[in-house]
Amino acid sequence: MAKSLDRQTKGRKSLADELAEAVLEKNVRAAGRVLSLIDDRDPLAKAVLKRLYAHTGNAHIVGITGSAGAGKSTLIDCITTELRRRKKEVGILTVDPTSPFSGGALLGDRIRMRDHFLDQGVFIRSLATRGSHGGLSGAIYEAAQLLDAMGKEYILLETIGIGQDQVEVSRIAHTVLVIVTPESGDEIQAMKAGVLEIAHLLVINKADLAGTEELFLKLGDVGVPVFKTSATKSEGITALVDGIVEHRAELLAGANHKQRAVELSRNQLLELIQDALVLKIRKKMGESSVERWAQKIANRESDPYTAAETILGKLGF
Amino acid sequence: MAKSLDRQTKGRKSLADELAEAVLEKNVRAAGRVLSLIDDRDPLAKAVLKRLYAHTGNAHIVGITGSAGAGKSTLIDCITTELRRRKKEVGILTVDPTSPFSGGALLGDRIRMRDHFLDQGVFIRSLATRGSHGGLSGAIYEAAQLLDAMGKEYILLETIGIGQDQVEVSRIAHTVLVIVTPESGDEIQAMKAGVLEIAHLLVINKADLAGTEELFLKLGDVGVPVFKTSATKSEGITALVDGIVEHRAELLAGANHKQRAVELSRNQLLELIQDALVLKIRKKMGESSVERWAQKIANRESDPYTAAETILGKLGF
Repeated sequence: MAKSLDRQTKGRKSLADELAEAVLEKNVRAAGRVLSLIDDRDPLAKAVLKRLYAHTGNAHIVGITGSAGAGKSTLIDCITTELRRRKKEVGILTVDPTSPFSGGALLGDRIRMRDHFLDQGVFIRSLATRGSHGGLSGAIYEAAQLLDAMGKEYILLETIGIGQDQVEVSRIAHTVLVIVTPESGDEIQAMKAGVLEIAHLLVINKADLAGTEELFLKLGDVGVPVFKTSATKSEGITALVDGIVEHRAELLAGANHKQRAVELSRNQLLELIQDALVLKIRKKMGESSVERWAQKIANRESDPYTAAETILGKLGF
Repeated sequence: MAKSLDRQTKGRKSLADELAEAVLEKNVRAAGRVLSLIDDRDPLAKAVLKRLYAHTGNAHIVGITGSAGAGKSTLIDCITTELRRRKKEVGILTVDPTSPFSGGALLGDRIRMRDHFLDQGVFIRSLATRGSHGGLSGAIYEAAQLLDAMGKEYILLETIGIGQDQVEVSRIAHTVLVIVTPESGDEIQAMKAGVLEIAHLLVINKADLAGTEELFLKLGDVGVPVFKTSATKSEGITALVDGIVEHRAELLAGANHKQRAVELSRNQLLELIQDALVLKIRKKMGESSVERWAQKIANRESDPYTAAETILGKLGF
């Protein structure tokens, strides 16, 4: 194998070096392993990503959101097929924060996706974000950087559910698709009050159902392009992918493009600093001291605010 | 007014003292103001909560979750009516993370809830959690503490959407209700893989619709009590509230009760420490330095991991 030969000529490499090189060589198993490390908040993940960072910044991240039953995964399947037809490499990340409880069986159920599992140009994984203290967005952002370094030009980021996850995804994604269906009904009102405002492109999926035209008219005033698709029939997909490609081109030509990259970098930097500080302080104060304070607070012998001040004071912060 | 007289005899009080006292006197406007401070992550909120902390620990927090269209708010309305009939004071918190984008118009649309707006025994507010860096759960937990100190015996915590929000709520709530409907269809499968596992009580709402018995049988193996309700017809509510009260009694009698309180206290303490540290370090390094690093990272002249290490090293952490 080239890798062991490599090792002999250049001397022993660190595991982080090896994983980073394998990812750059599009090794799927190595990428999967790094993704698991990210998901587990293993420090090794950061060491690998540090080495990959110079190779990132090329991927276009598409956030795909909408409530359960809107047909998100079928639509992602169709978009992937179309992007592959256009010779683009695709990464698919499913963010499923409920899977810490289940072990993440969801992805296995997606029969249609299985076609893509055999395609070397597509990388599919589910993120559980198990180490839950700290933002969801940090792990997603790192996972996207991994796929970016791996050469995936389009990264499709699917969230299970509406709410905080959507807001997080909208921070990271370049293009946000919000999927609705003629069945959505009451939801549209709620969406109009918030979720729709994170959308760059709006998709009415299941557009073969009754009520599509009515919904299309209703959504006429949202101020973003509205597409009609029927993912199960693979209809309307070419136009939608054209819409994504156009939005990407607009962004790259726009003045905000650079500022957005700086903003994401700032967030990631501050999150890394925060994580490192919390780790350090927990180590410094010791778990038994944390536990004693927690018990005092639970017994109402102290309050969390006084406790935090006291601890920070003692440690000289 | 008693308050100004108080001020004359005891000398000038801090605003935090005044707000805390007013909350303990069940002053709705003061409570609303503190809730806004929590939502805005204003440091004054912490000063007030510090003073209120000794008066907390009595409320039972009920998390209510399920997808849009399941009838959550109508059900909350019914549960509130039933709890009020039993002479319990009720707090209702709606967690709506999408409202930073909209200003939170949702709550105003809930016509049925308006009955309770006139009831002094019910306090209703929506949390937008605007200051988004840092966990959602911190703000919800603080809001629940405020209502707890205000004497609300039951706090109903509604989340908009499924996903990370649900997981956060399930950490804070004592009893988690997951609402499904006979319309849910495919969703149930997805739920079984995760969301159902956070449920203490399962509610089939819209139980007057076809498919209810089929769904009831399907859910027979989830291992938690399943209730059938029709919120629009106020049916099945007494049994559901009995179920909540029973679950509360079980928890209070159980061995885990104390340990859970310690756990929540530990989380809150660590979150407070984390927030304080991040604030401190941003101040210490200065915004212009943060910005310079962010630009270098965005230009791929550095990577976020090296940047974080360098900054922490320079600041002596």
